[in-house]
Amino acid sequence: MNVSYKRKVNFYETDAQGVVHHSNYPRYFEEARGFFLESINFPYPDVREQLNIDIVLLELHIKYRHPLFYGDTFEVLTEFKMDNRYFFRFFYTIKKGNETVSTGETKHCCIDRSTRKMVPVPVEIKLRLK
Amino acid sequence: MNVSYKRKVNFYETDAQGVVHHSNYPRYFEEARGFFLESINFPYPDVREQLNIDIVLLELHIKYRHPLFYGDTFEVLTEFKMDNRYFFRFFYTIKKGNETVSTGETKHCCIDRSTRKMVPVPVEIKLRLK
Amino acid sequence: MNVSYKRKVNFYETDAQGVVHHSNYPRYFEEARGFFLESINFPYPDVREQLNIDIVLLELHIKYRHPLFYGDTFEVLTEFKMDNRYFFRFFYTIKKGNETVSTGETKHCCIDRSTRKMVPVPVEIKLRLK
Amino acid sequence: MNVSYKRKVNFYETDAQGVVHHSNYPRYFEEARGFFLESINFPYPDVREQLNIDIVLLELHIKYRHPLFYGDTFEVLTEFKMDNRYFFRFFYTIKKGNETVSTGETKHCCIDRSTRKMVPVPVEIKLRLK
Repeated sequence: MNVSYKRKVNFYETDAQGVVHHSNYPRYFEEARGFFLESINFPYPDVREQLNIDIVLLELHIKYRHPLFYGDTFEVLTEFKMDNRYFFRFFYTIKKGNETVSTGETKHCCIDRSTRKMVPVPVEIKLRLK
Repeated sequence: MNVSYKRKVNFYETDAQGVVHHSNYPRYFEEARGFFLESINFPYPDVREQLNIDIVLLELHIKYRHPLFYGDTFEVLTEFKMDNRYFFRFFYTIKKGNETVSTGETKHCCIDRSTRKMVPVPVEIKLRLK
Repeated sequence: MNVSYKRKVNFYETDAQGVVHHSNYPRYFEEARGFFLESINFPYPDVREQLNIDIVLLELHIKYRHPLFYGDTFEVLTEFKMDNRYFFRFFYTIKKGNETVSTGETKHCCIDRSTRKMVPVPVEIKLRLK
Repeated sequence: MNVSYKRKVNFYETDAQGVVHHSNYPRYFEEARGFFLESINFPYPDVREQLNIDIVLLELHIKYRHPLFYGDTFEVLTEFKMDNRYFFRFFYTIKKGNETVSTGETKHCCIDRSTRKMVPVPVEIKLRLK
């Protein structure tokens, strides 16, 4: 399953090099994850409320190939993969037209919002990803 | 009482116009408020924990006179004034050397962290400002 | 002319009070201005390139009435008004359903991108706003 | 050479999980890089002006071990390593007291500010790192 999230560059995301500042890419990835969860009908606010969990980011890896400029339109292609019952990953490809601007990967687990302890990935999430 | 908070411009705070993006000024003001509360020995994390209140921002006014650039050092001069028992204001002047870069003002009240209702400004805060 | 720009709250825009941090509102306003310029068929990247000007922010005023939360959908209603041949303002109302979350106002002028000096508002902009 | 950069968490860097949002870590790393360059007497604004280059980020890797909270003080320990004549890396360890909060790594090259083409790492930089 590969979900495409479309987005425009905002001016406040640029820096004095004239391009999107690299710290915005983790934010684009987060938006794409949110859109991914919506596309399986389980938006993150519902995940938090209904399952009483927070999804925590453990690792972040990004390769920057080409810059994004103010006014650019791009899409983030997102895939999901379970590592084991506790850990899972999202994989991202940012495309501007046919050009691959950036690729990235995040590793996550779930924690109980009350105890802040790690819990297995809820079956409610895994079922929707089948 | 006029407290001076010194700061350097970070690269990620610039935009494609080559200057600090205007949305960072409210963040500089917030840092200056935090420093102000520390300088009266009542840091905001203590305010939140000990008094169980959040300080809420109601209004924000900023005049931008001159730009800030990457590498600039500046200071934020901060003053505090009670409006009445519920409302208070901070006044800010951002200076780069003798040049006034920006002036600003914020209006605040306090809310109970549990009920999210407005409460009078705690006497513990007012006493320290005398 | 009143342009409506629709937006969702991103998680990274929230703070430890559980609501959208106030420094994001100037960013929402900037997005709404950009959308306003697109809706008169003169997107800001074109303004910058074709007229060789930057639109500069001189003043920012915001009133915060109700918080925005992660997952909220809101719209920014934007209006434009000339002050005189050099200065103009945008007025913003952020609505969540029928609730007015925030109102704001920004004052601007245009500067030549090469000289960084103020120039009258280009007729190309004024004509499209008639 | 291992440079320590000290920093406090700002409130606007927290998110609705009550911790520092992960997208701020690349910003902390950038601040630490800037401080590293200052500590070898070659601040980045000088690098940009005197050598007419921009330092570009090619890769970013972060492991998040423990959260940072509003009010926390932390240090970023930064090391530098040449890969070859074109590429170099910074390695970061974020410490809160004795606790390792996060580790990270960035890969960079230099580009000519006029042509935007990659150039070898200027000898002026390499000399100061000896």
